[in-house]
Amino acid sequence: MRYFKLTIAYDGTDFHGWQMQKSKATIQGEIVAVLRRLTQEEVQLNGSGRTDAGVHALGQVANFRTESGLSATEFQRALNALLPMSIRITAAEETGPAFNARFSAKGKIYRYRVYRGKVVPPFLWRYVLHYPFPLDEEAMKLAAARFVGVHDFSSFAASTGSEDDDKERNMVREIYSAELKRTEDGEELWFTVYGHSFLRYMVRKMMGTLLEVGRGKLVVRDVERLFEMKDRSKSGPTAPPQGLCMLKVEHEEGFRV
Amino acid sequence: MRYFKLTIAYDGTDFHGWQMQKSKATIQGEIVAVLRRLTQEEVQLNGSGRTDAGVHALGQVANFRTESGLSATEFQRALNALLPMSIRITAAEETGPAFNARFSAKGKIYRYRVYRGKVVPPFLWRYVLHYPFPLDEEAMKLAAARFVGVHDFSSFAASTGSEDDDKERNMVREIYSAELKRTEDGEELWFTVYGHSFLRYMVRKMMGTLLEVGRGKLVVRDVERLFEMKDRSKSGPTAPPQGLCMLKVEHEEGFRV
Repeated sequence: MRYFKLTIAYDGTDFHGWQMQKSKATIQGEIVAVLRRLTQEEVQLNGSGRTDAGVHALGQVANFRTESGLSATEFQRALNALLPMSIRITAAEETGPAFNARFSAKGKIYRYRVYRGKVVPPFLWRYVLHYPFPLDEEAMKLAAARFVGVHDFSSFAASTGSEDDDKERNMVREIYSAELKRTEDGEELWFTVYGHSFLRYMVRKMMGTLLEVGRGKLVVRDVERLFEMKDRSKSGPTAPPQGLCMLKVEHEEGFRV
Repeated sequence: MRYFKLTIAYDGTDFHGWQMQKSKATIQGEIVAVLRRLTQEEVQLNGSGRTDAGVHALGQVANFRTESGLSATEFQRALNALLPMSIRITAAEETGPAFNARFSAKGKIYRYRVYRGKVVPPFLWRYVLHYPFPLDEEAMKLAAARFVGVHDFSSFAASTGSEDDDKERNMVREIYSAELKRTEDGEELWFTVYGHSFLRYMVRKMMGTLLEVGRGKLVVRDVERLFEMKDRSKSGPTAPPQGLCMLKVEHEEGFRV
């Protein structure tokens, strides 16, 4: 048996999220279908985390095992030759049996993009939320920083539970850094958040809350109050999916071969 | 009667080019359909030049006239509200009767993008030619510079004639600048060409010829020989459309209101 790690970039616009579903196009489903054709085996593919419909990734990580004799480079080339252009394997490497894309993950970085200009360029609409209205960006920056640390993120979770496991109801998560800033060209606001792991919809609920702070519907100290309230109806709405991208997943070096 | 100038950006991937066609989606067709709904008039829209199927624009320019009482800002907002996200009106202004997007044009800038990395990011495949194979880029840069000046571009034209008018068979065009360079991140080659006007397929034939120089199938001095030969079968192939973008159209200031 051989073990492989894939790094995957995708444009989530035309997919029903990462996770395989019957009769719906998903990222995992597309990759698994090609892996099964290449190996003639019932390959299972473990992702580091599910992304929702319309959410993108630059550095999703997944692993699988196979009896195939193909090398990592051959898997990468064959997958890229057979997958749609909106899903790309950016790296492939052989790993060991202990590597698990989800459980070996040490951290994840997500970015949410808000386009502030009047007209969204036709090349960007898939990747940004268009919000051309006034925002108190200084207050949003202060509020973003309040997410850092170990907190109960119940107020920022989907009603259906955690991204990782619907049965796991521990809503405490650690955020290592959270920053909101304008891009150099001044056209976008980027909310970049780095944490150990995330609940389902968590980044989008954080972004929705920051937008409410920007609009003056919430204030900076409401972030701490939301940690205490544990009430998702009190935070901002779930920001739409297209602005969100999973930038990177970090794994423990020890698990690499 | 009132006269308007539109600046238009579009992702040409899903359209059959600029020019209206019966029962095919085109950029001009989409905009005209919305203008007719907004004005209840048989509006005509004149573009500065046709772009082929799959070719993009950042700054296409077009003009129309109408009896409508809508302001330029109202036209821009209403068009962007009703057009697909892949076509955006980036500017609208009222102009005078003498302004004609095509005949008032003083110059156009096109860019052709070649992606040199091994894997095309899923966010870029619509906008680049993927060419990861070895190229003599120094020879290509020298060849690109040879396009500058007044030349007979018959060897770089479509068999169907000029972009501007199929009946006009004057193949002499003036190129003000032509430059090939690597992008700062090193992942792309950009061929940027600025000229008074262009024949149909001309930029794509120039790019196809530069790629032949890069591959060693043609040499730098072949550019001058191709001007003399006036034989399109001797130049490089027409590079595929998706790498090409009409960046900007310049107009004589005097025609602006």
